[in-house]
Order: sequence, then C-alpha cells, then structure tokens
Amino acid sequence: MEYASFLRKHIGEIVALSDEEFNLILPFFSYRTINKKEYLIREGQTVHSEFFVLKGLLKAFMSDESGKEFIVQFAMENWWISDYPAYKIQGKGDLCVQALEDCVVLELSLENKNRICGLVPKMQQFHGTKAFNGFVALQKRVLSLMRNSASEKYELLLEQYPALFQRVSKTMIAHYLGVSRETLSRLSHQR
Amino acid sequence: MEYASFLRKHIGEIVALSDEEFNLILPFFSYRTINKKEYLIREGQTVHSEFFVLKGLLKAFMSDESGKEFIVQFAMENWWISDYPAYKIQGKGDLCVQALEDCVVLELSLENKNRICGLVPKMQQFHGTKAFNGFVALQKRVLSLMRNSASEKYELLLEQYPALFQRVSKTMIAHYLGVSRETLSRLSHQR
Repeated sequence: MEYASFLRKHIGEIVALSDEEFNLILPFFSYRTINKKEYLIREGQTVHSEFFVLKGLLKAFMSDESGKEFIVQFAMENWWISDYPAYKIQGKGDLCVQALEDCVVLELSLENKNRICGLVPKMQQFHGTKAFNGFVALQKRVLSLMRNSASEKYELLLEQYPALFQRVSKTMIAHYLGVSRETLSRLSHQR
Repeated sequence: MEYASFLRKHIGEIVALSDEEFNLILPFFSYRTINKKEYLIREGQTVHSEFFVLKGLLKAFMSDESGKEFIVQFAMENWWISDYPAYKIQGKGDLCVQALEDCVVLELSLENKNRICGLVPKMQQFHGTKAFNGFVALQKRVLSLMRNSASEKYELLLEQYPALFQRVSKTMIAHYLGVSRETLSRLSHQR
C-alpha cells in the first residue's frame, strides 16, 4: 500500500487527516495502471472521474480537423488530470487524456468525491484549495498566452516546470505553448 | 438591506443556508461603493480581499511598458473579482481592478472567508464550487486562445456573455480576446 502513503502525503499538504479519517476515504479511490500511449479518456466519452497521478506523465489535449494538437494540461506525479469541462457536467467532452509514459493513477469519481466530503468535511477544504490553486495557475497562463512572446512563454515554462522538459518532446511543449515547432526549435537552440 | 438578499440568493444557488447561518456570515462582508474609473486594486498594492459585485461592471487587467492593455477578467452583477494571484499569496500583484461603471461591491478578505468557513462549514463547499467553476471556465478560455481564430473567439464571447457587449467598448473586448482593435472592428461590421 505504498500508494496510500503517497496520497496521504499529498492531502496532508493542505489538510491533516487522522488515521481513521484517511482509512474512511481511501476505499473510494481506484488504483489503475495504463501503458504508454493508452488513453484514460477518449474524445466523446462520458467523463465521471478525475485522476491523481502516482507515477508517470499524461497529457489532456484536443485535435482539430487537420490533426493539429492543442495541449490543455500535462500531469506528472502529484497532479490531477481529467477532461474537466466534461467532468463538471458529468457528460461528454472534446478532450482526450493519454499516457506519455507507463502510468499508475488513482481514479476518483465525482460521486465518490462528494461521498468523501460528506464523510470527512475537511476534504471539502482540500478539493476547494486544489481548485482555487488551479484557477490561479490558469489566470497566469491566460495572461502569458495573451501577453508574452514565444520566447517569454518558453522561458516561463522552463522556470516553472524544469522536470517537464526532461520528459516531453519539443513538439509537445510547442503544442502546450501554442507556438510552432519551428519557433520552439529556434528558441531552444539559442539557449 | 437589499444587498443582503442579493448575496443570499447568490450563495443559495450552490448551498442552502438557514437564516441563522446567513446572519452569522453577513457581518464579514463589507459594503463599498466606487465610482466609474476608480480603482479597487492598484498595481503593486497588497491584495487581501476579493469582491462580489452587487451592481456595476469592473475589469482586472495588466498593462505593458507601451501601455498595451491585457484584460484577464470582467465582472458584472453576481461575479467575483480580484487580483487572484496576489490574493492567493496575500501579497503584491501585477493586476489592477478598475470600475467601468459606478459600482457597489461586497468586500471579503481571505481572513474573513476562512472565518466564515469555520463558522458555517457549508461555505467551504460554496467557495470550492465557485473556484472549480472558475477553473473550468479558464480551461475553456485557454483552449480558445490557443485554438480559435479572432472571429471564433469573438463569436464565442458574444454567445457566452451577450450582456457584456452592451456595456463595454469594442476596444476592451479586443483587449480581453487578445486581438487587435482593427481585427475586431472588421468582425463586428461583418455581422
């Protein structure tokens, strides 16, 4: 049950749970492994759950008609990922979530999340804080998308998430920043 | 106390409060009026609070060295606004919040928000849900900024927030969409 202590440490960064409280909520998470290139969520699938990453790396993305890819989110160890607009309405969405490495995740459905918050009200604070932190990070990203040059966006990402650069291709970073692969190559060679 | 019933209705869309619970939390909100063009938050100011709009319209924005403006957020009646990255760290930020009409707002400091959640734990769910909804809306905006043409961004905003178009200038809509004023003029004349 190594993964249990991993999850407990993650929650403990925001709220302190007693052994009893943690043991109450643990059964609501489902352990899943998926291989590199496999999908956690396919386009058009009904989305009931979000996923906490224990090991590995995933991307949430959308493709247009020409096959051009737009990456909304990466997720590594300790991050959460889903097609959140679809999860919010517990309906179908436009995003896919795909493993970029062999992954181990904990799945939590919205139904189970609500049960957890009913059983252990402190978990409401945990999920609220995670949502608020995500909101603030996205406000910064919106500003960066509007305001920064390709070069500034690249530097900012490198500064915020140095570990990501070791694990994903330049093409994917370009798809996350909304710049062309050629622009990104030029920038990374200048360094 | 008309504003009290306005706030209560807003909270009631997410959680139901008893009279007693609502009366417990109400004193933590401060009533403030500000005139058109005045600032709620100036650049570089320490940010302790967020603001719930009872009446009027505001924008949260940043300017670069050349005076070019980037609008992160508008807020009308029933919306919340702040310099959220600064509010999160209870420190200094880069955004300004300015009134675009004469406004009436309720100010809630982070300290008071935490007190409210301690007194009435259901309010944790209210604030968590608001944060999560904001997170999802921003994920959609990030996708739109990366993916859509100026014309698609414009149509999407018009569809989502028709009321906004009656109340803000074309220039400001351009600053929100991250497109030039000229592009926007062309689009709005085509309609």
